[in-house]
Amino acid sequence: MRSGPGVIRGIGDDCAVLRVPAGHELLVTTDFTLENVHFRREWHPPEVVGRRCVTRGLSDIAAMGGEPRAVFLSLALDRSVPQKWVDRFVEGLLAATDEFGVPLAGGDTAQSAGGIQADIVVVGSVPGGKAVLRSGARAGDWIYVTGELGGSAGAIARLRKGKVRARDYERHFHPTARINAGVWLRRRGLASSMIDVSDGLSTDLEHICEESRVGAEIEAAAIPRARVGRPLQQVAFDLALHGGEDYELLFTSASKIPSAIGDIPVSRIGRITRKREMALVDEEGNSRRLVAAGWEHFRARV
Amino acid sequence: MRSGPGVIRGIGDDCAVLRVPAGHELLVTTDFTLENVHFRREWHPPEVVGRRCVTRGLSDIAAMGGEPRAVFLSLALDRSVPQKWVDRFVEGLLAATDEFGVPLAGGDTAQSAGGIQADIVVVGSVPGGKAVLRSGARAGDWIYVTGELGGSAGAIARLRKGKVRARDYERHFHPTARINAGVWLRRRGLASSMIDVSDGLSTDLEHICEESRVGAEIEAAAIPRARVGRPLQQVAFDLALHGGEDYELLFTSASKIPSAIGDIPVSRIGRITRKREMALVDEEGNSRRLVAAGWEHFRARV
Repeated sequence: MRSGPGVIRGIGDDCAVLRVPAGHELLVTTDFTLENVHFRREWHPPEVVGRRCVTRGLSDIAAMGGEPRAVFLSLALDRSVPQKWVDRFVEGLLAATDEFGVPLAGGDTAQSAGGIQADIVVVGSVPGGKAVLRSGARAGDWIYVTGELGGSAGAIARLRKGKVRARDYERHFHPTARINAGVWLRRRGLASSMIDVSDGLSTDLEHICEESRVGAEIEAAAIPRARVGRPLQQVAFDLALHGGEDYELLFTSASKIPSAIGDIPVSRIGRITRKREMALVDEEGNSRRLVAAGWEHFRARV
Repeated sequence: MRSGPGVIRGIGDDCAVLRVPAGHELLVTTDFTLENVHFRREWHPPEVVGRRCVTRGLSDIAAMGGEPRAVFLSLALDRSVPQKWVDRFVEGLLAATDEFGVPLAGGDTAQSAGGIQADIVVVGSVPGGKAVLRSGARAGDWIYVTGELGGSAGAIARLRKGKVRARDYERHFHPTARINAGVWLRRRGLASSMIDVSDGLSTDLEHICEESRVGAEIEAAAIPRARVGRPLQQVAFDLALHGGEDYELLFTSASKIPSAIGDIPVSRIGRITRKREMALVDEEGNSRRLVAAGWEHFRARV
């Protein structure tokens, strides 16, 4: 366990004690990661499981425009899990948190009745009143997404057929939360709403539409489809549209956003509409209803 | 899910957004509760499981002299768990948090590979620099404990023999975190160190001794043994000395503490010593070494 500038007391007491910057509000997110639901030991090396677990939480902080401050890990293991697995899991987790200077400040361990269960809590902060919510999208706003979509679903599809080389599916095996892009947008007040693409574009866009009480029109050709595999190939359109766990940021803005934030590409993929439904428009201008058909569907088959 | 004065945004976004009082530091504690490790469905009604889960976390906040601000629940269930069980579990959890006006601000649900796993996070706060740590005990300080000890271990011992009436084992089936006593002590600066009795008196006292680099001398006859069962009977001495999950506060102070804080009795049970070992003194003044033989031993048999 590490400590950092915001952690006054880490493990070794009843609670961790953290300092929150003056004038900041606190962000808290929790994510349960379960063996054979979110990962498989034969598909995912322990370092990858650790990284993916904590990236889920870091990505939630990014989606609020926040900065992560501390991570807590609750880990339940059955007796069959070797210590080596745990060491490598924690190594992968710390490699991801170290990229943002975030300390692992505590947690809990327990003996499970079977398999591995990890619950990760990420605590972050954002200047008071500045958290970017899902509810701020307005008709006429542009819709943007960072990076590429469908890479993680593409990896799962390929894993079902046999072994893969992790480096050919970077976004699945080595995801990074878009903290810097989220902070960049929040500081400039550019994002009217934001969410991370964890359940899939169609589902996460629906979350924004519901919370903001608006609709959306997406240009099919504008969706940035991930290139994965060897040789590199674009994932199927449906994987980019519905596949989850890409941990990119989906946001809306009344402003034109540059085509990259730092070195992260940004694509403009559509527009928020007054009419409360989602539509997909093809290159000929034909529009069809877009129904959220998200990640749960895919993940149930992991 | 509820919201409260400190919760700006509860569920329905990527993170919960909380307000921390100006000048306060943040307290965070996480506790994993697993079926057949921490509870049994045939022994514990769902409301009791919910209450006991969250009381573990609230009690950690109490042990820092803190006030709870928000609770997060991550719950994994297999398909066999009926919705009714979950509803009653949440009811029990909310009954305990409502006593302190603490909102359930978020969490996560997932489908488990088997059984019930609940991870509870409690976020609290304490005025900057005022958290009561385990490390502040000094030679010569008195050692105090709230309430009675061994009641929870007594219930488990009895449960192994068959059905029990919950009301005869109140502290096991209906525990309450000692938040008010913890805050009372912290406000007056009376506790030099504090911990909650979750692992058992001998083990938790050892934690204080280790973190404070001191020893302790306990008067055996002064340990407040719980009265449980029907007719009421004092639990065996060893259950009071080593049994866990009583969620009383164990603290040290250079001052004389009244025999009750509010309506919670307080017992003076010994003294902190310079010599770094723990001793148990009987009524004739004979001293023997006290070895931590805590709750893990008992709990392994739940």
